[in-house]
Amino acid sequence: MRILLINPNTSQVLTDKLDRAARAVLPPDVELVSVTAEEGFPYISSRAEAACAGVGVLDVLARRGAEVDAAVIAAFGDPGLLPAREAFDLPVTGMTEASMLSACMLGQRFAFVTFTPRMAPWYNEQVRQAELSARFAGTFTPDVPLGNIGEIDSDLRGPLVAECHRAVAAGADVLILSGAPLAGMAPSLRTEVDAVLIDPVQAAVLQAAALVRLAPLGASGGSYRRPPGKPSTGLPAALAKHIARDE
Amino acid sequence: MRILLINPNTSQVLTDKLDRAARAVLPPDVELVSVTAEEGFPYISSRAEAACAGVGVLDVLARRGAEVDAAVIAAFGDPGLLPAREAFDLPVTGMTEASMLSACMLGQRFAFVTFTPRMAPWYNEQVRQAELSARFAGTFTPDVPLGNIGEIDSDLRGPLVAECHRAVAAGADVLILSGAPLAGMAPSLRTEVDAVLIDPVQAAVLQAAALVRLAPLGASGGSYRRPPGKPSTGLPAALAKHIARDE
Amino acid sequence: MRILLINPNTSQVLTDKLDRAARAVLPPDVELVSVTAEEGFPYISSRAEAACAGVGVLDVLARRGAEVDAAVIAAFGDPGLLPAREAFDLPVTGMTEASMLSACMLGQRFAFVTFTPRMAPWYNEQVRQAELSARFAGTFTPDVPLGNIGEIDSDLRGPLVAECHRAVAAGADVLILSGAPLAGMAPSLRTEVDAVLIDPVQAAVLQAAALVRLAPLGASGGSYRRPPGKPSTGLPAALAKHIARDE
Amino acid sequence: MRILLINPNTSQVLTDKLDRAARAVLPPDVELVSVTAEEGFPYISSRAEAACAGVGVLDVLARRGAEVDAAVIAAFGDPGLLPAREAFDLPVTGMTEASMLSACMLGQRFAFVTFTPRMAPWYNEQVRQAELSARFAGTFTPDVPLGNIGEIDSDLRGPLVAECHRAVAAGADVLILSGAPLAGMAPSLRTEVDAVLIDPVQAAVLQAAALVRLAPLGASGGSYRRPPGKPSTGLPAALAKHIARDE
Amino acid sequence: MRILLINPNTSQVLTDKLDRAARAVLPPDVELVSVTAEEGFPYISSRAEAACAGVGVLDVLARRGAEVDAAVIAAFGDPGLLPAREAFDLPVTGMTEASMLSACMLGQRFAFVTFTPRMAPWYNEQVRQAELSARFAGTFTPDVPLGNIGEIDSDLRGPLVAECHRAVAAGADVLILSGAPLAGMAPSLRTEVDAVLIDPVQAAVLQAAALVRLAPLGASGGSYRRPPGKPSTGLPAALAKHIARDE
Amino acid sequence: MRILLINPNTSQVLTDKLDRAARAVLPPDVELVSVTAEEGFPYISSRAEAACAGVGVLDVLARRGAEVDAAVIAAFGDPGLLPAREAFDLPVTGMTEASMLSACMLGQRFAFVTFTPRMAPWYNEQVRQAELSARFAGTFTPDVPLGNIGEIDSDLRGPLVAECHRAVAAGADVLILSGAPLAGMAPSLRTEVDAVLIDPVQAAVLQAAALVRLAPLGASGGSYRRPPGKPSTGLPAALAKHIARDE
Repeated sequence: MRILLINPNTSQVLTDKLDRAARAVLPPDVELVSVTAEEGFPYISSRAEAACAGVGVLDVLARRGAEVDAAVIAAFGDPGLLPAREAFDLPVTGMTEASMLSACMLGQRFAFVTFTPRMAPWYNEQVRQAELSARFAGTFTPDVPLGNIGEIDSDLRGPLVAECHRAVAAGADVLILSGAPLAGMAPSLRTEVDAVLIDPVQAAVLQAAALVRLAPLGASGGSYRRPPGKPSTGLPAALAKHIARDE
Repeated sequence: MRILLINPNTSQVLTDKLDRAARAVLPPDVELVSVTAEEGFPYISSRAEAACAGVGVLDVLARRGAEVDAAVIAAFGDPGLLPAREAFDLPVTGMTEASMLSACMLGQRFAFVTFTPRMAPWYNEQVRQAELSARFAGTFTPDVPLGNIGEIDSDLRGPLVAECHRAVAAGADVLILSGAPLAGMAPSLRTEVDAVLIDPVQAAVLQAAALVRLAPLGASGGSYRRPPGKPSTGLPAALAKHIARDE
Repeated sequence: MRILLINPNTSQVLTDKLDRAARAVLPPDVELVSVTAEEGFPYISSRAEAACAGVGVLDVLARRGAEVDAAVIAAFGDPGLLPAREAFDLPVTGMTEASMLSACMLGQRFAFVTFTPRMAPWYNEQVRQAELSARFAGTFTPDVPLGNIGEIDSDLRGPLVAECHRAVAAGADVLILSGAPLAGMAPSLRTEVDAVLIDPVQAAVLQAAALVRLAPLGASGGSYRRPPGKPSTGLPAALAKHIARDE
Repeated sequence: MRILLINPNTSQVLTDKLDRAARAVLPPDVELVSVTAEEGFPYISSRAEAACAGVGVLDVLARRGAEVDAAVIAAFGDPGLLPAREAFDLPVTGMTEASMLSACMLGQRFAFVTFTPRMAPWYNEQVRQAELSARFAGTFTPDVPLGNIGEIDSDLRGPLVAECHRAVAAGADVLILSGAPLAGMAPSLRTEVDAVLIDPVQAAVLQAAALVRLAPLGASGGSYRRPPGKPSTGLPAALAKHIARDE
Repeated sequence: MRILLINPNTSQVLTDKLDRAARAVLPPDVELVSVTAEEGFPYISSRAEAACAGVGVLDVLARRGAEVDAAVIAAFGDPGLLPAREAFDLPVTGMTEASMLSACMLGQRFAFVTFTPRMAPWYNEQVRQAELSARFAGTFTPDVPLGNIGEIDSDLRGPLVAECHRAVAAGADVLILSGAPLAGMAPSLRTEVDAVLIDPVQAAVLQAAALVRLAPLGASGGSYRRPPGKPSTGLPAALAKHIARDE
Repeated sequence: MRILLINPNTSQVLTDKLDRAARAVLPPDVELVSVTAEEGFPYISSRAEAACAGVGVLDVLARRGAEVDAAVIAAFGDPGLLPAREAFDLPVTGMTEASMLSACMLGQRFAFVTFTPRMAPWYNEQVRQAELSARFAGTFTPDVPLGNIGEIDSDLRGPLVAECHRAVAAGADVLILSGAPLAGMAPSLRTEVDAVLIDPVQAAVLQAAALVRLAPLGASGGSYRRPPGKPSTGLPAALAKHIARDE
């Protein structure tokens, strides 16, 4: 089985981090192919950036989807997730959704712990869209300046642990370390926090692998059934061709 | 006051229809500027198409937003609405959201009546995102082939009236005639249906005008506060410049 | 267009405040007619008082409704709102409902900031009735004694700003300055609070004007359809006549 | 223990029916005092009528509340219930709320079965206000003309049984025979319907008696705590005196 | 009328406490029969313990149910409640459910105040199962060591009062003193807390007595209808016989 | 990795069916150990039966849990699931929960399609407990007599397909073939139904395998943290020993 891990950010350092965290839990028969967005933003942190990145994700899928059995959108906030499911006939998972659903088997209420309040509103919208608000304890972020995006996990370790404790006090019993820069960090916090910790890229890759075995065509029936072909102008070439069903 | 009506579809015939319906209710001090997307799809009808159109909407706002006091996204499903609110400091409304909120002052439960089941899942996601499911009675669509997108309102009049009656029987008391091709149709059905009928482009324009008076900067504080500038690659030039805050 | 602003309290000083705040945002073609309740309470602050005031609102509408195109119930808590919609065929808005729905286009979660905890339970019931709890961040009130009802906005300015900050910390990004005594106060706080501020009487008047253009008969179909005439005893004369449809 | 049963309608025939049904389940130490509204409507069937009746209920409580240990508002729709709880320090129950809460111990989902669609919207608002929508299967009414309000239970027996079956098919397993004219009817239907049948005036009286033993002052603390005295004009004399705390 | 009070714990001291609290509110025609579980745990405080106790409750009902008109499951958390309703044709109430539903007639939002955080997750699941989350303000527990289970009410009085105040500050206006060891404690706190206090075993017994009068067969129709007989192996003899309908 | 599949029913024929369906999707490094309940019911179909079976599941885990990395409760309705998670430190999944959560990545709304209405109320309670009602389209069952429990999938094929179509018409786009007797049936229906079909035992085994990689200790922190040891009487020996932490 081959899984495509799409980093919708343009930072290769994040792709490397995500790839490393994902490989740590890969089932033995799964091959991981990680790609970095060629255009867009070094690190997505607003709704408009996510909207642009979402189209980029669709384009990567149009170019590379045929090579793989499933795809993972590896930016917290899941840019392009629902459109990707509808437009492509293979399982697609996102870091936010996959970690929320996994959390529901490990505790009563999950929280997001992340490094900047800027993304909380966008993340909250994913909870709403998944209709999981009743199991959501909130987003917790330290109020400290960010440094290098590749070093956030070590630079902010202390403040992030403090936020984990705040989330537990607020009723969360599963904590999702949210945002690609925190990929791989969960195991190192397990002894310090009385809650279950989830690494969302791991959740997304594991759910993608599970879906390949459970429903190999992904969301190919029902409300996500692929629409008929349609002409367009101005789209990236591969995406235009895919949407036109000019295959 | 000037309001920008953005048709995210590339069909000028739809822009004309929308512009006409909107002008029928325009307050006397409002000037309407209607623009048609230059790239994209003749008529958006899937999530991937909406995702692409959303970026187009942001680009139009980057190019034309400074000329106006508010903007209306004139495709049912509101592509780009939440990103636009965050990225721009002026009121922005969408046809779906504005008609749902207006409906809440006119009845207990609203329904969407539209011409094709293909868009229902996408529309339903807007209800969820607005957290208005408790007041939503469903999407009702006839099961008949579409003809010319510009003539749907007359071609499908009978089947649409039948769906209105089905929606009423299912508990809806406000019916939203959903989709740009139905713009302007509501008044002609008022005598045939025992419910309140809403034309969503009218709702969107009226709400935009109201917001200009109530909160001239739009969602400029709180969770939609405009983010700091950020460099990008591959975006339409005006949008890249706007997001970079290179103004 | 003529809009009737009904102050269900008997304090003329509040009517003046409400009238002034409403006029600040009036569209150019709207004439405002403000009336003060002749009987009832100087300032409504409990559920029983609101129940009595609600009947007074219906009576004002029976006496004056025919002169106008829409009506605004200008007491936070919206006494008589749903009965008024059913009994009269013109758009009717209330300060609470109109500000909540407007808030949904300006942020993710709204809060009420007001001057006394006594009214919070009654206000909360309006949120429930509108099924908007999922977007509600709570009611925030200072714990200080009230002085003169006409001077609350200046006397309690400091404590109210502090409550605005508490509401933001609790996740609200739109703040509704609740209660007629705070009418007109919102603009002066805008520089001090990182959230969108709404003046509810302005929201109510603007929504009433929008509804006149969108649905001139108001909630005249569906669940609010006016019932057949019915005899009564003991009601105010005009209201009895209206309910009897003895017109 | 003495319980005051307030019929907010002016029809003595309904009071007799309600009194009879209530007495059939009265605990041995409970004395029932039934009173009929002196002013208002023969039979409440709209929101405005309910609003007027609600004030009448408060006035009856002001005049007679001191004689009893608890009160029951005996019109389906519970006019004046929440104001009565706040304004008076004794347990107060309503037919709708009491039957819904009792239903939650007898099944998963309850439905209202009643004789006219006119009241469904008002009844639905009580479900919303109680936040019990998740356990509500809807309101079911036959589409037949009403005859004499005192004979509805026998005149419409067949159509009502048919609606009971419809409600069961829609997922309800507890049926509340709604509206004072159906008081006393439940037992006679028990053999014909595969669901639990509830007579709401019985539920209301039994809950009132239970509350007297459980919390003799009713909702006297918390959000329903009785407010300080306040002057008024134009209210019925006893009610004005009670609200003024001029006791 | 005879009511069976089943203490699913094996501590006779708790049965005595529960029996005493229940008798304080018993209607004059009700006879109370209290039994203590013969097997299981001295005091249930986890989900697995509750699961085991639930089967014990069913067995007591199989052995003693025929002697009584209704039964009360007298452990907070209601072990075995829904199975008991389905398997037996008499009203069955539980302390958690009965106190929550009673609370809905006495305030807007209830809280549980109890003596140890260990049981909060299990209690929360009962709120969810009853679909009452919208009226739930949380579980509040002091962070102090427990002493003798029979003396908790006096040993922890101070810390419990402090938790009552915390619950009120969090928006609760009805406080349910949760857990059998707190039975009988509510009245003594009434002067110290500005909220309504409920003793859950009293609520459960009163609701059971009310249901006997309202629906003597309990949940005998609908979704709780008793299933046909079925053979089993390994069950307690009386329960096996009851489930086999070998009566 | 070793996974324990626990069939809480005593029918070996069902264990064989479940084992076969599970093996069809097993990752290459997973060894499956299937056990059949030694005591209880041939086929669980009521809440009391599920309650008894839940204790049996805990006992199997006490006896066999140490040999494996995760466990699957293989009866639709998930008897004992939440207690098992709390009492044991390894991932535990259930057929209902795992299939619902998987469904959330494959469509907007799931439905249960099963062979008898008797179990619908119990299944519905699992949806409620998981707080997934907003994504649930209902339970659909044919109204035909059951034959041999081991042959239901072939005997009722036609009626089950008809129910699948009914579920789709009601808005479901993922169908969960519910109940152990339908294990293995999903693939054969894929060409006949326009929706995604899920086999719940496959979902449960795949989720268990994913959790072993994501959170090897299962729900060991937070609200499911294993409680301290406690003495008991009357429990199965292994379970008593486990709960006593006498290891």
